[in-house]
Amino acid sequence: MPEIAEHIVKSFELELNRLRALITDMGGMVESQVAQACRAVIEKDGDAATRAVEGDPKVDALERDIEQFVIRLLALRQPMAQDLRLIVASLKITGDLERIGDYAANVAKRSLVLNQFSLPYALTGLAHMSLLVQENLKTVIDAVGEGDTAKALQVWRSDEAIDEIYNALFRELITYMMEDPRNITPCAHLLFIAKNLERIGDHATNIAETVYYTVTGQPLADARPKGDTSAYAVVRSPHE
Amino acid sequence: MPEIAEHIVKSFELELNRLRALITDMGGMVESQVAQACRAVIEKDGDAATRAVEGDPKVDALERDIEQFVIRLLALRQPMAQDLRLIVASLKITGDLERIGDYAANVAKRSLVLNQFSLPYALTGLAHMSLLVQENLKTVIDAVGEGDTAKALQVWRSDEAIDEIYNALFRELITYMMEDPRNITPCAHLLFIAKNLERIGDHATNIAETVYYTVTGQPLADARPKGDTSAYAVVRSPHE
Repeated sequence: MPEIAEHIVKSFELELNRLRALITDMGGMVESQVAQACRAVIEKDGDAATRAVEGDPKVDALERDIEQFVIRLLALRQPMAQDLRLIVASLKITGDLERIGDYAANVAKRSLVLNQFSLPYALTGLAHMSLLVQENLKTVIDAVGEGDTAKALQVWRSDEAIDEIYNALFRELITYMMEDPRNITPCAHLLFIAKNLERIGDHATNIAETVYYTVTGQPLADARPKGDTSAYAVVRSPHE
Repeated sequence: MPEIAEHIVKSFELELNRLRALITDMGGMVESQVAQACRAVIEKDGDAATRAVEGDPKVDALERDIEQFVIRLLALRQPMAQDLRLIVASLKITGDLERIGDYAANVAKRSLVLNQFSLPYALTGLAHMSLLVQENLKTVIDAVGEGDTAKALQVWRSDEAIDEIYNALFRELITYMMEDPRNITPCAHLLFIAKNLERIGDHATNIAETVYYTVTGQPLADARPKGDTSAYAVVRSPHE
């Protein structure tokens, strides 16, 4: 009898590993979708935009597969305590990853519009922001795969820097719009692109919070540094 | 023995009812948060803005309570099949409600900036959009409480109308920006307010999909009408 019990425990371990692998697979797909969306904007790469948009239904399908897998796992294994927390966490994480994929696809679509305009200014701030966001996304997916709270904390702390760049970008783009009405349409899309990248950063932070809570049993959310103040931004036109 | 079994089943029924009640409570809180945020923008009501922002931590706390309740339910009751689907669905729904609350708080914050500007144009389109979004939100929360697939379908179908108003608003706001640079800052915030309302509508649609799937076992997602084409919008300045 102990041998049978051990066998059941082992095969449950295998299934939890399979769940972790499915989530890091989904993470990898989303990571490459975000990378392509960023390349589409920064390097005006239309093919990368198409690939980022086409990745979206695959990510959605994988999310549904993971949900089915989780329901089966809950029904057949009736897991307890720590394992249960891990399983519930994986549903939250796949939800965040799915949203990140949506934002990446939206960035890619807008890049196609931007390519129709000649921008008289460099996308330096946006390029910097996109690198930080991609780095955080990569780190948090590693944190998921390894249950690494140090990496989760690192992502959680560095989200503030992303928010600061976003706030600076918001003001910069509004200023370009005021300088020349021909800048208004492309800058409106750039505003949304920057906002989408900022939201991707937020979802990476959500995932970091989920990883931390799952491993330690302690929430990280209460002390979260909130850096996006652009909602309050007032930029006055020189004409006023 | 059958009496004990019956007692267990009954008390599980009670707990599922309690879960449904918690979710509709959260839905009610979010609904009033959105209503206050809309009033803050349309009627320039600063008190309503404050209430919408202050509602956010309460919604987040309720989300965490529901998650704890679900984990306890899974651990103690080891539910099967249909019940399991309902429990997993409730986690998805609370995730969507939490995001709606975030968007409402962001709308409210931006309304405070708008009050610093005198807008030379009516907010008719936005007022119309905010009514439709609030109506969909109310209907979908009813659908959750009653497990009503007809209401879920109604919400799912009417999201397209919201997207259409959003697309028209996007172009209208860009045009105001082009007409006068003093419009640029308030219109940039209005762009984000409109986008947030459109996202609230999307999350209501997500909830409708979850309700439909939970009750029928069939997905609704594949045929979803996608109406937001603003990501592709090109509005040319008359100066070009």
